[in-house]
Amino acid sequence: MTVTATCIHATAAGADLTKGTVTRRDLRPDDCLVAVRWSGICHSDIHTVNGDWPHDNFPMTPGHEIVGTVLETGTAVTRYRVGDVVGIGCMVDSCGECTACARGEENYCLDGLTGTYNGVDRHDGSVTQGGYSTHIVCREDFLIRMPDVDGGLDGATMAAMTPLLCAGITTYSPLKHWEVGPGSRVAVVGMGGLGHVAVQIAAALGAEVTVFSHSLSKKEDGLRFGASHYVATGGDAADTFHRDHADEFDLILNTVSAPLPVHRYLGMLAPDGTLVMLGLPTEPLSVRVNQLTGRRRGIAGSSIGGIAETQEMIDFCAAHGITARVEVVTAAGAGGVDAVNDAYRRVLGSQVRYRAVIDARTL
Amino acid sequence: MTVTATCIHATAAGADLTKGTVTRRDLRPDDCLVAVRWSGICHSDIHTVNGDWPHDNFPMTPGHEIVGTVLETGTAVTRYRVGDVVGIGCMVDSCGECTACARGEENYCLDGLTGTYNGVDRHDGSVTQGGYSTHIVCREDFLIRMPDVDGGLDGATMAAMTPLLCAGITTYSPLKHWEVGPGSRVAVVGMGGLGHVAVQIAAALGAEVTVFSHSLSKKEDGLRFGASHYVATGGDAADTFHRDHADEFDLILNTVSAPLPVHRYLGMLAPDGTLVMLGLPTEPLSVRVNQLTGRRRGIAGSSIGGIAETQEMIDFCAAHGITARVEVVTAAGAGGVDAVNDAYRRVLGSQVRYRAVIDARTL
Repeated sequence: MTVTATCIHATAAGADLTKGTVTRRDLRPDDCLVAVRWSGICHSDIHTVNGDWPHDNFPMTPGHEIVGTVLETGTAVTRYRVGDVVGIGCMVDSCGECTACARGEENYCLDGLTGTYNGVDRHDGSVTQGGYSTHIVCREDFLIRMPDVDGGLDGATMAAMTPLLCAGITTYSPLKHWEVGPGSRVAVVGMGGLGHVAVQIAAALGAEVTVFSHSLSKKEDGLRFGASHYVATGGDAADTFHRDHADEFDLILNTVSAPLPVHRYLGMLAPDGTLVMLGLPTEPLSVRVNQLTGRRRGIAGSSIGGIAETQEMIDFCAAHGITARVEVVTAAGAGGVDAVNDAYRRVLGSQVRYRAVIDARTL
Repeated sequence: MTVTATCIHATAAGADLTKGTVTRRDLRPDDCLVAVRWSGICHSDIHTVNGDWPHDNFPMTPGHEIVGTVLETGTAVTRYRVGDVVGIGCMVDSCGECTACARGEENYCLDGLTGTYNGVDRHDGSVTQGGYSTHIVCREDFLIRMPDVDGGLDGATMAAMTPLLCAGITTYSPLKHWEVGPGSRVAVVGMGGLGHVAVQIAAALGAEVTVFSHSLSKKEDGLRFGASHYVATGGDAADTFHRDHADEFDLILNTVSAPLPVHRYLGMLAPDGTLVMLGLPTEPLSVRVNQLTGRRRGIAGSSIGGIAETQEMIDFCAAHGITARVEVVTAAGAGGVDAVNDAYRRVLGSQVRYRAVIDARTL
């Protein structure tokens, strides 16, 4: 069954999004066809359709935080059945053979993971198209089983779990890798889509969490999400915010892509502490080596997580009642796409608290 | 007993070294007086006496690779006796109370370790003076017990073990911390005083070792020290040396203080690999974050090691027959100090293979 899905796509770099169609491939033996119910808007979607990371794969349908139901299964699919509620995150395939894939870390596939959109399909060479769409096809090995939650597929909880497929795993994976638990002191830099989830997960893991945010405007939310401390880094505080926190943190998760005063954050790391970069600043970091050597500090990067770990994260969040806080965007009718374009502008203006999710039934 | 020791010191930044005297303090209860037998010349000694890291603690007696015998013990000393052969490395004290000291990592003391020279004594506020000297006083807790080796205190083996008190622990500690063992792929950047020891220790731990060096002039030595591969990074190879090594190394130890093409080395790290900086470049590193995120790579720094780990390292090297390769410098007579000045020039010219050690009996 070839499916022509309705989608929201960009026809050129920087152009407003418009409605269109995207053809989903015939199912391969290990594929599932998924009817999309919720589709999150990630800041990186905006960078990609704007051409900030140059490419010429237009028209492009973004979206890599996807929840829906299985509509049809390929002949070799064993783990999912029609009607199952599933999630799809940032990747839909990997080589399956390298040392990283063998460890279940498909996100670090040495041959390059296949992105959910703007990737290249490993079998037919086509450019992948994402979740702002009524339907999508995905290998069963890259599906996540979504839990039973209050309200089921159509409820507010499921909508709010959707962004976890990117924002959740991007923050959960480093928190686990660097062994955060009771007694850990964790700082989260930025309290946007990633940060507000990071705070919740770190707190649920038992850490003492401090948020560093430009202003105190989200402080109340931050404390409610589980932070113990909330520190403003902008304005008058820009040169002093670090002073009371020397050698304090075991792990600092930087969720901000804007340029960072790296030396301030390195100075706040305890011995053996690590500053983990989750965003991609456009400029290289400037790192003073003496800040590393004197405390065996490190700077590292982390990028989403493997499929098994994504499943573990979803189950963890369900067990701890962790979701993103979301605004649902409806896109009904011919003019409905304007709501998505408006959401993009509001994400760029840091006005969305804290993630926008498209109601894909309104496409 | 106050001891007036003969020493070799710098009376001003950049001045040639001259002979002089340094007064060693009366023994505190936990002190030992040590008659220095061998004293290594570390590249950092030269930076310090040249004032490259500005200070005004002149006259200064450098030296933090010291082997000698205990001449006298304080009233509370329990672990050493007169006649014991002991070593002193880069530090002679620490706060003893912070979390790092509590873990036996006095080298990362949050209150700041007390350097063997150019440090500030925690009790009397005096500036510490190092090992280019006939005598030195040190707390017993910061002494290392040297092993019985062929030739004993006066033999060539003991002279060649002396640099391990800095070069050995500086490389052993990160190799252990990042869990190098059989199956590990380790790169050592630079084959000078630190690098030639790093190769031996990494190989003894079971790693496959690759050396990256400006030229192939030390290749034969490198392979003899235990390297499996030796790669030239300078001249015609400067833009291509990394090409065959993408995603290869679990750990890269950079022993070079000169500016490094960081992106080349980051690209050679396997997933979860770490580039460890052991030297202190004068300029900040420029780090492309996308090289970190896509493989969960890291950059870290490491600085010597704790006292217990230094003892472990000395015992490990003795068991595996690992020493530095040294040139012994004699400094007999009034003009003998010229031999040390000449050694300094030869270190700066990368002509010493691989470490110079002063015969302190000739002071």
